[in-house]
Amino acid sequence: MEVDPDLVPLGDAVRQLRKVRGLTQEDLSGLTELHRNHIGGIERGERNITIKTMLALARALDVQPAELFSKYRISAATRP
Amino acid sequence: MEVDPDLVPLGDAVRQLRKVRGLTQEDLSGLTELHRNHIGGIERGERNITIKTMLALARALDVQPAELFSKYRISAATRP
Repeated sequence: MEVDPDLVPLGDAVRQLRKVRGLTQEDLSGLTELHRNHIGGIERGERNITIKTMLALARALDVQPAELFSKYRISAATRP
Repeated sequence: MEVDPDLVPLGDAVRQLRKVRGLTQEDLSGLTELHRNHIGGIERGERNITIKTMLALARALDVQPAELFSKYRISAATRP
């Protein structure tokens, strides 16, 4: 699968918080019912997950969803 | 479609920010290339969108993604 620059900051945040919580990918898989490989792909920025999957990760990592997006700095779309 | 309580805070944030920006759903549709009906469903909390779609909305609304999740207060998943 290809890394998507749009998804890398979220992946980095998941990996960093997982490690801070002392969880392995296997542990996070157990808490979210997402396959361990899927978690690896999410952390590498390869998986365009849904909001519900992101919320399951936030709950498992015990953080508010906004924190998973704290690394993003995006610029506005050009107006028509 | 059914409203999903997990998705309502995000929908509320999109609607509120859209109005603050003085945009109609039609305008937001033009900026995001999402169909106007899809935007209505997102605002009602009916659509489990992907991270990339959420980022397109954030760009169009000229906000950082974290701000779209500022209304969420979630509790941690139960540990095994």
